[in-house]
Amino acid sequence: MTLIDGKAISEQVKQEIAAEVAQIVEAGGKRPHLAAILVGHDGGSETYVAAKVKACEACGFKSSLIRYEEDVTEEELLAKVRELNEDADVDGFIVQLPLPKHISEQKVIETIDYRKDVDGFHPINVGRMSIGLPCYLSATPNGIMELLRRYDIETSGKKCVVLGRSNIVGKPMATLMMQKGKPGDATVTVCHSRSKNLVEECQQADIIIAALGQPNFVTAEMVKEGAVVIDVGTTRVPDATKKSGFKLTGDVKFDEVAPKCSYITPVPGGVGPMTIVSLMKNTLLAGKKEIYA
Amino acid sequence: MTLIDGKAISEQVKQEIAAEVAQIVEAGGKRPHLAAILVGHDGGSETYVAAKVKACEACGFKSSLIRYEEDVTEEELLAKVRELNEDADVDGFIVQLPLPKHISEQKVIETIDYRKDVDGFHPINVGRMSIGLPCYLSATPNGIMELLRRYDIETSGKKCVVLGRSNIVGKPMATLMMQKGKPGDATVTVCHSRSKNLVEECQQADIIIAALGQPNFVTAEMVKEGAVVIDVGTTRVPDATKKSGFKLTGDVKFDEVAPKCSYITPVPGGVGPMTIVSLMKNTLLAGKKEIYA
Repeated sequence: MTLIDGKAISEQVKQEIAAEVAQIVEAGGKRPHLAAILVGHDGGSETYVAAKVKACEACGFKSSLIRYEEDVTEEELLAKVRELNEDADVDGFIVQLPLPKHISEQKVIETIDYRKDVDGFHPINVGRMSIGLPCYLSATPNGIMELLRRYDIETSGKKCVVLGRSNIVGKPMATLMMQKGKPGDATVTVCHSRSKNLVEECQQADIIIAALGQPNFVTAEMVKEGAVVIDVGTTRVPDATKKSGFKLTGDVKFDEVAPKCSYITPVPGGVGPMTIVSLMKNTLLAGKKEIYA
Repeated sequence: MTLIDGKAISEQVKQEIAAEVAQIVEAGGKRPHLAAILVGHDGGSETYVAAKVKACEACGFKSSLIRYEEDVTEEELLAKVRELNEDADVDGFIVQLPLPKHISEQKVIETIDYRKDVDGFHPINVGRMSIGLPCYLSATPNGIMELLRRYDIETSGKKCVVLGRSNIVGKPMATLMMQKGKPGDATVTVCHSRSKNLVEECQQADIIIAALGQPNFVTAEMVKEGAVVIDVGTTRVPDATKKSGFKLTGDVKFDEVAPKCSYITPVPGGVGPMTIVSLMKNTLLAGKKEIYA
């Protein structure tokens, strides 16, 4: 069994990005600039945004953090989005989700100029990904593709079961795994809350990508000997022994599943760090104007 | 075994559309107008476009056919697309594919204003479909959804195998079948040329949607007793006994598969007529400005 070390790979990718940024700047080019909008003080969001800012430093990017209180109006937020769209110094930006209920996330996403949409959530980027055109790929699926690539895991013709059909993980993950290329070319099955044969599908899978957000959902009996298991879950489960009061828990019962696997990602330290690195890769592409002029 | 009568359903839908158009016009509204651009004289394309023009008449739409010879330049074609984008009388338009090799189909598709893209091929419409937002749905998958709806075929929790991963059928079909709703909520597997376990996947399927373009590919041994089989294939196979010199042949070996099915679509007269009707539905939506203002 090989433990997929997302933390180590993510450090490696950040170093590669930093080297490229150093070259760009040395050649007189512009340092890529990522801006992030954070509304309110949700614990998870604070953690993610802080990690993104830190990753920007590691990559040699300029970063800006724009904060609003929970009671910001939709119009104020949209005005800021439009301002960032026009700001030539900002190459890409994100609005950290979730947003307070009185603000339409979809409206915010669609107001972002798709050429700066480094989260890859704008319909144009989603559509271009589906068609197979160059675009900003959604961060988590792209991070998983990078892990499969770096560990040279065979996917062609393999049965890949994706658990979950969310817009930010399940659906794009399925699209990327079925597309022509390496990694890709897999026979992809998407299971979800309504699936009646989920257990049987998993038992036949060569690759399982678990993105349900249900702690410890995937058990040993669901996994074939030699399977590749990618765990996207990061649920905060209360844990009195931790200083934070919670433990990040994946969708996979790691202790019993791991011995059966050829490859498995841990939680934390698997997919999580790769998600942030994907955002950095998109920011570099944005800085270089490689996808959109 | 129930034969799904796409021809009858398509006539019914056209009558429903015609009734709505009559009401709109009576109330002083604008008659929906579909324009089609046809390049060259490919037999298949001529047939499709003629059928679309005829369907427009049945629906009470205004239609325009704009023809170019095979040697039209990309720039001329794009100029016409831009002209139609600006033409307030044209509610929606299509450019019949395939185009001659010297013209980029993707460039043409992306030049069409997505608000008039009634074929649903523009990345914005593809992305919105994937996310689950209102949009112009791709015609063939939407036609199949309509058949499942009209025959009240249960899809929730069922295992649906889609054969083929094309941008215009396989991928959008998979997305629609896995989305929340009825029809929808299926466990969806996409198989393609690289799939190693295609036969086994089909044997387990409650619903098979065959869109490989390989005549008679799906045989009786691949189909479970009681399965629903939707045949998207329409390959022209030479046939000296036909006046046209060919026979439209599906991906399913109908004679041996049909007896095992609970529902099956014939070729011709199954999915084909529904594809054109979907285009009519999108044109009505465009005329009513129901999706985009």
